Amino acid sequence: MSRIKGSIELDFPNEEIAKIVYGSVLFEHKTVPYRRSRLDFSLNGSTIIMRFTAEDNSALRGTINSYLRWIKVALDVAEL
Amino acid sequence: MSRIKGSIELDFPNEEIAKIVYGSVLFEHKTVPYRRSRLDFSLNGSTIIMRFTAEDNSALRGTINSYLRWIKVALDVAEL
Repeated sequence: MSRIKGSIELDFPNEEIAKIVYGSVLFEHKTVPYRRSRLDFSLNGSTIIMRFTAEDNSALRGTINSYLRWIKVALDVAEL
Repeated sequence: MSRIKGSIELDFPNEEIAKIVYGSVLFEHKTVPYRRSRLDFSLNGSTIIMRFTAEDNSALRGTINSYLRWIKVALDVAEL
């Protein structure tokens, strides 16, 4: 249908929290074997940045959902 | 927890298709009475642009899901 690209930035209160969350989600990011959408996952100070491209709306929804869920789990576990 | 901002851009094959999809989703966009995340929804040529800010990860996921779903429905209905 269409080409989709975009980015989501999450600003955390400090670098320590961002680093903890980034570390746990990075593990998931690296172990996902296959993806129908491409996503770059990076850390810049206290900001986690996700940049993605996809050909497929549903695949992108799945990808964004996974990452935002992993981030929430990381925050919950660390009780941040 | 954190402040989230971002954007998603959808490039369509031509302005006509983009305009049709934009029009149908704009209707939903304007009739949603209440939102826990803020989203700007705009059209630039053959590109639909969504810019959002949120305080809440789950609310943002819900919002992104809704818009990507509406876009898919609009494409399906128009058989584009």
